[in-house]
Amino acid sequence: MGIKSSVAEVYAALTTAEGLADWYTTDTKGEGDELGGVLQFRFEAGGFDMKVLELHPDKRVLWEVIDGPEEWIDTHVDWKLDQVDDYTIVLFKHEGWKEPVDFMHHCSTKWAVFMMSLKSLIETGKGAPEPDDVKIDNWN
Amino acid sequence: MGIKSSVAEVYAALTTAEGLADWYTTDTKGEGDELGGVLQFRFEAGGFDMKVLELHPDKRVLWEVIDGPEEWIDTHVDWKLDQVDDYTIVLFKHEGWKEPVDFMHHCSTKWAVFMMSLKSLIETGKGAPEPDDVKIDNWN
Repeated sequence: MGIKSSVAEVYAALTTAEGLADWYTTDTKGEGDELGGVLQFRFEAGGFDMKVLELHPDKRVLWEVIDGPEEWIDTHVDWKLDQVDDYTIVLFKHEGWKEPVDFMHHCSTKWAVFMMSLKSLIETGKGAPEPDDVKIDNWN
Repeated sequence: MGIKSSVAEVYAALTTAEGLADWYTTDTKGEGDELGGVLQFRFEAGGFDMKVLELHPDKRVLWEVIDGPEEWIDTHVDWKLDQVDDYTIVLFKHEGWKEPVDFMHHCSTKWAVFMMSLKSLIETGKGAPEPDDVKIDNWN
């Protein structure tokens, strides 16, 4: 996905609780801007705790899931940023799933919806974080 | 993804040129409701020809890409439908990519956007097919 913005602005939205709360879930706490820091994301249906494994300013953020649904534990959420023309290109992966379960497919589409929320936040000033996120199915 | 609708309605939107034109690209031609039929999807930046390999009414549609960008040739686009409570659950895969190139990552997010267009078409009567699709990056 590409966002018409500087990489610094996208990096801030991925590494501060305030930025994350504006596109992912309003109930975000923790330290996203220090190695080993833990981000706590809470949703109506549950939540995830992610430990910050790598931080390369304006280039990459890597989280490890340390608490949440069993299928998410030990998976990695990986954000790579690159400036191409007017865009910050966001290369996103959530990898390490043990099995390609239906829940993985749900999460795949839901991540895309949240990525579009991030893009919207930065380009228009308004994201769609939970509880105002776009619902995609009976799992939400 | 889940759509609040009957599976028959979703199946029709995947197997008729009229249905496909309302959520994927307005420039859709061909026969999507017969085995061996070819669907021609055209976009501003190019297009894809897909051959219908499998049709199981209200359950599954499988296409093979026979013309388009080199990376797409011989890949398969797979739609599985299932009724769960009030929802038609759409399990979508575009598989057979030879390499996990950047273009694949672009297409992954773009497919999610088109799936949301399909959902919107059926739930609200209005999709967002090309050229009114949601643009996600510098590749469109």
